[in-house]
Amino acid sequence: MSATFSLHATSGAARRGTLHLAHGRVETPAFMPVGTAATVKGLTPRDLREAAAQIVLANTYHLWLRPGRDTLVAAGGLHRFMAWDGPILTDSGGFQVFSLESKRTLDDDGVTFRSHLDGSTHRFTPENVVAFQEDLGVDIAMVLDECVKLPASDAAIVDSVRRTTAWARRAATAWRRGDTALFAIVQGGLDERARTRSASDLIPLDLPGYAIGGLSVGETRADMVRMARFTAALLPPEKPRYLMGVGTVRDLVAAVDCGIDMFDCVYPTRSGRHGRVLTHAGEYNVRNAAHARDFSPLDRDCACEVCATYTRAYVSHLFRASELLGMRLLSYHNVFVLNDLMARARAAIDAGAWTAFRDSYLAE
Amino acid sequence: MSATFSLHATSGAARRGTLHLAHGRVETPAFMPVGTAATVKGLTPRDLREAAAQIVLANTYHLWLRPGRDTLVAAGGLHRFMAWDGPILTDSGGFQVFSLESKRTLDDDGVTFRSHLDGSTHRFTPENVVAFQEDLGVDIAMVLDECVKLPASDAAIVDSVRRTTAWARRAATAWRRGDTALFAIVQGGLDERARTRSASDLIPLDLPGYAIGGLSVGETRADMVRMARFTAALLPPEKPRYLMGVGTVRDLVAAVDCGIDMFDCVYPTRSGRHGRVLTHAGEYNVRNAAHARDFSPLDRDCACEVCATYTRAYVSHLFRASELLGMRLLSYHNVFVLNDLMARARAAIDAGAWTAFRDSYLAE
Repeated sequence: MSATFSLHATSGAARRGTLHLAHGRVETPAFMPVGTAATVKGLTPRDLREAAAQIVLANTYHLWLRPGRDTLVAAGGLHRFMAWDGPILTDSGGFQVFSLESKRTLDDDGVTFRSHLDGSTHRFTPENVVAFQEDLGVDIAMVLDECVKLPASDAAIVDSVRRTTAWARRAATAWRRGDTALFAIVQGGLDERARTRSASDLIPLDLPGYAIGGLSVGETRADMVRMARFTAALLPPEKPRYLMGVGTVRDLVAAVDCGIDMFDCVYPTRSGRHGRVLTHAGEYNVRNAAHARDFSPLDRDCACEVCATYTRAYVSHLFRASELLGMRLLSYHNVFVLNDLMARARAAIDAGAWTAFRDSYLAE
Repeated sequence: MSATFSLHATSGAARRGTLHLAHGRVETPAFMPVGTAATVKGLTPRDLREAAAQIVLANTYHLWLRPGRDTLVAAGGLHRFMAWDGPILTDSGGFQVFSLESKRTLDDDGVTFRSHLDGSTHRFTPENVVAFQEDLGVDIAMVLDECVKLPASDAAIVDSVRRTTAWARRAATAWRRGDTALFAIVQGGLDERARTRSASDLIPLDLPGYAIGGLSVGETRADMVRMARFTAALLPPEKPRYLMGVGTVRDLVAAVDCGIDMFDCVYPTRSGRHGRVLTHAGEYNVRNAAHARDFSPLDRDCACEVCATYTRAYVSHLFRASELLGMRLLSYHNVFVLNDLMARARAAIDAGAWTAFRDSYLAE
């Protein structure tokens, strides 16, 4: 079996489980730091372990273009290439290709696109995207999907659901490796009927997991949470549920409350590179003058090595001086905070204290 | 005593010693990685320990401007600010100020300069530069000197030697802290008479150590080595000798052979940020196409964690993809290589095998 998932406890919709993958176990709810180009920007695998990461995400679109399949296969797969021996999920590249708007041509068989690096032409099909991810030896592969930008017309949404279903069926047929779990992606924008249709099309494929795509793409936070809750409830309870592209501390807590098990987002690393500090009590920018002489840690409620070692004043100085180390330290801290948030959420569900935990983050 | 130095062995001019400083022991010959703005770019203190750094250098000019004395004092000194508990040497800022050519005005009392950051006006004197370094609590403070750019007229060199001597005397008088060792700097360009004059002026001050300044500033390598050898021989054998701004693997070996004990240079970190790999067998750029599919380590003769963990292909990929992690990994490796080179040099001198060791690096 490519992946087994067991549920240990629930509280309302919130779920506490364990996902067993080829390269190890993931306790859920879990946040997955994003390593787009086979590196979580600025951090080593050792840092990721220290920052309590259980699984990392990498990106089919970017890896396809650079370094490319042949180098990754010659390296012995993506795990060995990037020296991370824990679980890896690769997204299908669909989201990136559909972001290229002027540079791609879509047909029912697949999508042809030009590289943002050198303009060269490439083609993704449901089959070759699965094969690529299997060649990399990842633990979880995602099906190629069509992700529409919001707001979108009803027709565009219906069309994307139809194509996503057809492509998921082809991907499921193409799927070969027993140690790579294939996840399908539910689309449907903010349309409940389209989401229902997408889920009911995909569930019969009986894949090891289901993602909710097409959210966190420009809609309001309330719409995102509403659609995540609506869609999660459509999915089989015995399978892991992955909400793509989320998020912030508040969004993660809200989405766990919707019954989601897995998340990914560039937010902790991207915001960290810009001086933004995530904490359990809110965010701030460490460049602000208020922090220049503050010798307290980034977050008093954080047990990470950065908070144990450095002061706000020092990290603030690093950003003012445009020092590389600032980006590194804040990426590390922010990834730790989201992983630690998930660990606290798991403990709260285990202890039957989820509602109070949730409210402590979401109450105004 | 602010610093004690003991010599254990010599081979020709090459020396093997131990320097005891307020924050610990430095086995010499020793390389000092440069942490200009209170950070060795991209590396943490833990990395530096792993990369076998014994002492780091920081920069009076840069720290004076940002974050400034008051923040550093409020932090509890430079060690606590940057979370490095080993020895620190700060340079005097002389080299940086004299590089500002159009932005500084020199007189016999000191030098007035404008900040490269915001144009604000500042003044260094021999006294306030020592006081600043003592306020930071560093292990080794350097006297304010006048470093002339080469080539220079005889008159300019004579003048800089005269002023450097006068300033060193004032610095020695201003020096207060017993746990900060004050080092003087021998100037004199490529002129043996000026170097002799400078050394004979400074030696009577009986300071804890002597640096050789004004080299590695544009002269040929042969001139650098010749003047380092000439100047080192003028210095008291019982005091540590520090050659400023060196260097590369070959330059370090050549300079140890001249009887130098300590070195600093941005080379391993700056070149690392540009993809340049230092090895015991020579340098190369990891971006080169030849390395894109090379799954061997950066340097087969290196025991650092980067070489144990990652391949040339991966590091090459990181540089092609402009990933932060590439700069970090290569800075770490390069610093390790120079520290390891010094460890091997120490072992060779201890074992009476210096000449063969030296020749293995310097023979064409």
